[in-house]
Amino acid sequence: MCNACLMNAVKDRMLSRRSFFTVAAGAGAATALGSAIAPPAMAAGHGTVEDMTHTLSDAFPTFDGVPGFAMDQQFNFADDGFNLFNLRIAEHTGTHIDAPLHFSADGASVDEIPVSSLVAPLCVIDIAARAAEDADAQVTPDDLNAWISANGDIPDNACVALYSGWGAKVDSDGFRNSDGEVMHFPGFHVEAAQMLMEQTGARSIAVDTLSLDHGASTDFATHYAWLSSGRFGIECVANLDKMPPKGATLIIGAPKHAGGTGGPARIMAMV
Amino acid sequence: MCNACLMNAVKDRMLSRRSFFTVAAGAGAATALGSAIAPPAMAAGHGTVEDMTHTLSDAFPTFDGVPGFAMDQQFNFADDGFNLFNLRIAEHTGTHIDAPLHFSADGASVDEIPVSSLVAPLCVIDIAARAAEDADAQVTPDDLNAWISANGDIPDNACVALYSGWGAKVDSDGFRNSDGEVMHFPGFHVEAAQMLMEQTGARSIAVDTLSLDHGASTDFATHYAWLSSGRFGIECVANLDKMPPKGATLIIGAPKHAGGTGGPARIMAMV
Repeated sequence: MCNACLMNAVKDRMLSRRSFFTVAAGAGAATALGSAIAPPAMAAGHGTVEDMTHTLSDAFPTFDGVPGFAMDQQFNFADDGFNLFNLRIAEHTGTHIDAPLHFSADGASVDEIPVSSLVAPLCVIDIAARAAEDADAQVTPDDLNAWISANGDIPDNACVALYSGWGAKVDSDGFRNSDGEVMHFPGFHVEAAQMLMEQTGARSIAVDTLSLDHGASTDFATHYAWLSSGRFGIECVANLDKMPPKGATLIIGAPKHAGGTGGPARIMAMV
Repeated sequence: MCNACLMNAVKDRMLSRRSFFTVAAGAGAATALGSAIAPPAMAAGHGTVEDMTHTLSDAFPTFDGVPGFAMDQQFNFADDGFNLFNLRIAEHTGTHIDAPLHFSADGASVDEIPVSSLVAPLCVIDIAARAAEDADAQVTPDDLNAWISANGDIPDNACVALYSGWGAKVDSDGFRNSDGEVMHFPGFHVEAAQMLMEQTGARSIAVDTLSLDHGASTDFATHYAWLSSGRFGIECVANLDKMPPKGATLIIGAPKHAGGTGGPARIMAMV
């Protein structure tokens, strides 16, 4: 059915909306029309689900400072009987995935990340106190060793996340925190990435900032080391302050476009 | 950092890649360069994770027959030191969400769907045998009652999914199955949607076809009834043939752009 055919069919349908609404009212649905969805009961067998994803809009801060997301309304309910937008997205915008291909010549694309890596034990490395004093703070091997001393080994398939407190800055200039030359926000030191690669079975790292590398990095050492090893990253994760150091399960709703280098993802955690 | 600054920084970084690769090799990562990621062990405490998402590309079939996805490469590794694509996406393309706003004037947008509804008990209504004989087959109240008789009540917060066998046709013209006038594929009859709304706490319905309504529908009765009640839908779900009738937990990685009517989603199931 072409777009014109679809619109005509929907318009015809709208002409008989009186009968539809009568049916809907009979189904007890009329009071819910236009209202937000009420939170339902949790699925049986789970605790709570936490949303680890920032809401995406054209105002979302980006690494290069250029808007990375736009929406164009193609159909609207008043004229067409339904709403639909066309989206324009720079892959590395919002809460998003860095696939190995992002920083390697022929690494795995985002659709090639095994689904088994997308449900992962979450290990949270909290350097928020240090980052509050030093925006250039980085996760180091010492931070990882301190976590291991307190919490035990990093599990196979883990996602190791940097909690810097930066998620709370997402609506302010402090998120990019540019001094006019470079940005200043925390990231993973390449030596921490290398320790995870050598000594653990972690498959992903996550940050609550704009980059796996700290903002002042000029060599992207962590991107090159981690991604070209076949592992993946997650940037701009939300709500890490609500996570325990260990014990949560991260659900990584990565996009699945063929050959992609990453993209906006829905990240959730089961606690 | 502007794009030009970023590219220059990355190019500078590439000039010293010899030292990087030496470091990477020292970290035992060199053999994995450019290779696909090997499946890791599962996260502790889970069974298996099944991917319920089709791979998205510009060839993915769409309801209106117009390509709904395109990728434009903005940066490439050989010239720029990293890969990045800009994406153009019609929201209702690929394995995707229908938010209430898609078929209502002011219903909840995709970012307003509660995260607690995105982890849901999965109920699979198997009408594949009937659909093989009749492409216009629909899920009816009788099908739902048969499922309940065999499996017990539909749980609160459930996603009720139509398994028609159509997922296996996704790479063929049989997926849209147009006769030149209308398409022919299975969907939910509006009376089944109304039964779920009146008698159960289901929050979503899913189909392995292009539409919640069957392909030959001209009134989109199920879209209007279900979505305008504040509930949401999932279209083009993959791998429903691998799911049990009950017992799996569906993970619905919905996109989270403000005001969106839906969009490509990563759907997984824990079995």
